Amino acid sequence: MILTVTLNAALDVTYRVPRLEPRASHRVREVAERPGGKGLNVARVLAALGHETLVTGFAGGPTGERVRELLAEVTEAGPVGDALVTIAGTTRRTVSVVEEPGAPGGATLFNEPGPPISPAEWERFLTVYGELLAGADAVALCGSLPPGVPVGAYGTLVRTARAAGVPVVLDTSGEPLRRGLAARPDVVKPNAEELTGITGSTEPLHAARLARRRGAHAVVASLGAEGLLALTPDGTWRVEPPRRVPGNPTGAGDSVVAALLSGLVEGLSWPDRLVRATALAAATVRAEVAGEFDRAAYEELLPSVTVTRQMVAA
Amino acid sequence: MILTVTLNAALDVTYRVPRLEPRASHRVREVAERPGGKGLNVARVLAALGHETLVTGFAGGPTGERVRELLAEVTEAGPVGDALVTIAGTTRRTVSVVEEPGAPGGATLFNEPGPPISPAEWERFLTVYGELLAGADAVALCGSLPPGVPVGAYGTLVRTARAAGVPVVLDTSGEPLRRGLAARPDVVKPNAEELTGITGSTEPLHAARLARRRGAHAVVASLGAEGLLALTPDGTWRVEPPRRVPGNPTGAGDSVVAALLSGLVEGLSWPDRLVRATALAAATVRAEVAGEFDRAAYEELLPSVTVTRQMVAA
Repeated sequence: MILTVTLNAALDVTYRVPRLEPRASHRVREVAERPGGKGLNVARVLAALGHETLVTGFAGGPTGERVRELLAEVTEAGPVGDALVTIAGTTRRTVSVVEEPGAPGGATLFNEPGPPISPAEWERFLTVYGELLAGADAVALCGSLPPGVPVGAYGTLVRTARAAGVPVVLDTSGEPLRRGLAARPDVVKPNAEELTGITGSTEPLHAARLARRRGAHAVVASLGAEGLLALTPDGTWRVEPPRRVPGNPTGAGDSVVAALLSGLVEGLSWPDRLVRATALAAATVRAEVAGEFDRAAYEELLPSVTVTRQMVAA
Repeated sequence: MILTVTLNAALDVTYRVPRLEPRASHRVREVAERPGGKGLNVARVLAALGHETLVTGFAGGPTGERVRELLAEVTEAGPVGDALVTIAGTTRRTVSVVEEPGAPGGATLFNEPGPPISPAEWERFLTVYGELLAGADAVALCGSLPPGVPVGAYGTLVRTARAAGVPVVLDTSGEPLRRGLAARPDVVKPNAEELTGITGSTEPLHAARLARRRGAHAVVASLGAEGLLALTPDGTWRVEPPRRVPGNPTGAGDSVVAALLSGLVEGLSWPDRLVRATALAAATVRAEVAGEFDRAAYEELLPSVTVTRQMVAA
């Protein structure tokens, strides 16, 4: 079983409107709701790839109920296992307003703040997390921290996983990433901006090298349409999709995490994991809905991804 | 007991953001949730005025649950009685994005479409409505119709109330108002735009007279900051607040309906009901939150509202 952790889960709501006019009243044409938060997206992709997957983190209130309901029904590959810890607070919503036809700048987003987590709820999560690790082949720690969760949370969760012998992938940003890195996760997956945020360097190779020295065994940096840069114990690689894929980049990073986890538990080599991650990210950009991927595009892209070994010290 | 009907109830969500930028991502500073839909606002004002009040209409899904939870907790005067009919669909949300400090044009609104109502759910509502009328001193029929409810719904509901000897106030627009009028409600409360919509006339007195000829026993037209124009069996009146009150006009019309209903069941004369309605509407404009009123402003405005009898044929 693969475990994904989403401490700040969300109910993602998408509104389709003809055109967004500030200070006007809009009749919403179409409403879509999905389980949101990076770890939940990762879990759905893993389930679609055929892996037994369990999600944990926090959920509460009517929006939390709705997230759980949607988790139970999603994916052709069957539902994702729900081990979310129930909290007194209410799971946040994110509202995306999409214009038709797609406006150039993309969607307008409104992100609610996360619900407050009490010390007792955090303790309860730590117990559940420890128990779940016993049955996990790998774990992903994803996304931002809601108020009340200690900023060093990912450091604690990485250490617990490593003590249990479970490989851990960390995907977050800012101070939570900095603290998580120090606990020596197996893989971190920052994007270029997040790398710059923690290292101060805008040059991806240099920044990834700095991040690796801070503690990560491997750094897989996602460089948007330019693919991935991976610094691993086995070597350094650049991986590129065969062509620029137009579409919605939301969720592409989550598909990279899902591919890295699935490749890890299947015992794939680093180049094979990276090829899978690049094809899956491109197939996610091609899908209509964030957190889903276009399976035909994935199968078609897989053989044409280019991996180049970089002859530099990792 | 006063009964209010809200066929298209909503969960009103307000987001406070520093500034709305189309196609950008916004961190929401503050989230507020309220029970929404005209009839629910009317009920809350009635409860605050000390009247025993019951709401009916439809509620469903997690948002419907939330509306019921909020209804049970609101108003200093005690909760509003909940006789909403549970449906399979999900109660709509309305999202208002408010900028700080208040932008000149006001809030940006996103109104979800209402949930579909099945023929069986509509039948069930008609049964509940008939039973509730037996204990009602007056009834208000408020707002738009969700999909699946017949466009002549308000005609049916007006006739049932009249057959049960319960005075009925109708506050809606367009075709549902046109059909409701023909069933001869005791009072209709259109605003200037709604009056024009059904009569074609942009001159309020003329339009109100036309609306009255179509079937309403009394027409109380709300003319925004200019107050009310009332054509009743006892005469025609213009009522004006002592001065222009700055603030948020959302909910002012609902307070007029609440004042007319409370005045009716208390046996007040038409001029007294109109004075109350005008003071209460102005005190609602002064309140922070739609559907609430500033009690001190209400008490202060009450003695200074001007009623002028119009010497014209109603």
